Amino acid sequence: MKTVSENRSFGGVQGVYSHASKVCGVEMTFAVYLPPQASQGPVPVLWYLSGLTCTHENAMTKAGLQAHAAEFGVALVFPDTSPRGEGVANDDAYDLGQGAGFYVNATQDPWKPHFQMEDYIVQELRDLVQENFAVTESHGVTGHSMGGHGALTLAMRHPDHFVSLSAFAPIANPTQSDWGRKQLGAYLGDDESLWSGHDATLLLRDKGWKGDILVDQGASDQFLDLLKPESLASALAETRTPSVFRMREGYDHSYFTVSTFGRDHVAWHAERLKS
Amino acid sequence: MKTVSENRSFGGVQGVYSHASKVCGVEMTFAVYLPPQASQGPVPVLWYLSGLTCTHENAMTKAGLQAHAAEFGVALVFPDTSPRGEGVANDDAYDLGQGAGFYVNATQDPWKPHFQMEDYIVQELRDLVQENFAVTESHGVTGHSMGGHGALTLAMRHPDHFVSLSAFAPIANPTQSDWGRKQLGAYLGDDESLWSGHDATLLLRDKGWKGDILVDQGASDQFLDLLKPESLASALAETRTPSVFRMREGYDHSYFTVSTFGRDHVAWHAERLKS
Repeated sequence: MKTVSENRSFGGVQGVYSHASKVCGVEMTFAVYLPPQASQGPVPVLWYLSGLTCTHENAMTKAGLQAHAAEFGVALVFPDTSPRGEGVANDDAYDLGQGAGFYVNATQDPWKPHFQMEDYIVQELRDLVQENFAVTESHGVTGHSMGGHGALTLAMRHPDHFVSLSAFAPIANPTQSDWGRKQLGAYLGDDESLWSGHDATLLLRDKGWKGDILVDQGASDQFLDLLKPESLASALAETRTPSVFRMREGYDHSYFTVSTFGRDHVAWHAERLKS
Repeated sequence: MKTVSENRSFGGVQGVYSHASKVCGVEMTFAVYLPPQASQGPVPVLWYLSGLTCTHENAMTKAGLQAHAAEFGVALVFPDTSPRGEGVANDDAYDLGQGAGFYVNATQDPWKPHFQMEDYIVQELRDLVQENFAVTESHGVTGHSMGGHGALTLAMRHPDHFVSLSAFAPIANPTQSDWGRKQLGAYLGDDESLWSGHDATLLLRDKGWKGDILVDQGASDQFLDLLKPESLASALAETRTPSVFRMREGYDHSYFTVSTFGRDHVAWHAERLKS
């Protein structure tokens, strides 16, 4: 693991690191924020999964989560959203290929050799973080847009790995959306029965989630038609899943929304990760 | 004035606007954050002046100040750091020309036709903000690096325009620094006696400031040799200026430092702007 940069932030350290990923077969970059409490002993971890076109950097610089992580004594991990670089498949569209891994393990060429984001997040990067930073084994996960999809689906697919769960404006029903059908088809193939395991709404109905879920969604989000929050809201209610689903008047899809509600989410996770 | 974008943020509105600047002779872009309190009546204004290479956008997206502005009921204005675009003089160096206006009115070619940032900030943009947003005439000013220089010098040069003053890692003694001598020479000419009116340390000794001053400086700032905080610290002490000058262990020149101490600065200004 190489240190790309480290900056003092709210009494802790915001670091950027890279490592040779075996799972993805390329060098991967990620960011970790360690709050000041980590110098006294291991702290729980909140994973933040980013959306389309993002790297590890967007949330690290724009979401303002470090203030809250320092307040509540939680570490933050910001992974990249896909493998990158020469030799890694890509597409001209912003929503497929590099920057758009969708948090699945691709089974189809040309994506299969590098796009193994589910195993990367849940296994390889988790192990790396566990070994190299002062963190406990209590992990929560959140994310924005495609990363909200990632948070919801990875938590439900790997309930032993995550204690707490929330999402900002998640892609909530990708098997029924142009943000999903195209990518799941490309990465997993044409058999739509294989897609349902990566759709938060369908997973909730099929497997459910062991705990409670917090979701914030802007009512003025310019991508409501693609996100399909109504699918998730109705599934949460129909499955009687303990949950808080907030439709926020006037808020859009930007990081101004994530930063506004960031403290609520860090507090939500901290309460559950420490109990 | 044209609206480029508006996003809901912490119950208020983060807007980006542009206008045809008479003073700079080009279209200029700036950002204004109006806190939720502005819907009930006019609120005081805190100006944030950015550093080298920045536009209106850096602090708007990375400093996290909107949370504090909403808490304390203060509007924020984020101007650009120079005129920009085709027909505007520039230099290959990052620290001269576009993105590096140094908050002075250039008297020398090729800069003179457009680089009139002092008049732009203190007169034209101030009037525009006053006319178009729900703000009072109580204005404070802060800034980072070159923008900290701008805050300190514009406040001392125009004490009737500003009630409160602070800075993050300001260029504190530009007449003695490579961040200053090159630019003041280019914009104002070779007569160094004309530079002293744009040097915070010299201005403090010559004119002083009517109120108190808050400065945060990272002790691990990679640009300490160029910023020369010791010049400002000693001038503050020698002139007996009421002030808080904090050398912050471990913090560097990045926005991770600005965001960490942002709440302190907004609170400082709010207390003085509302009294």
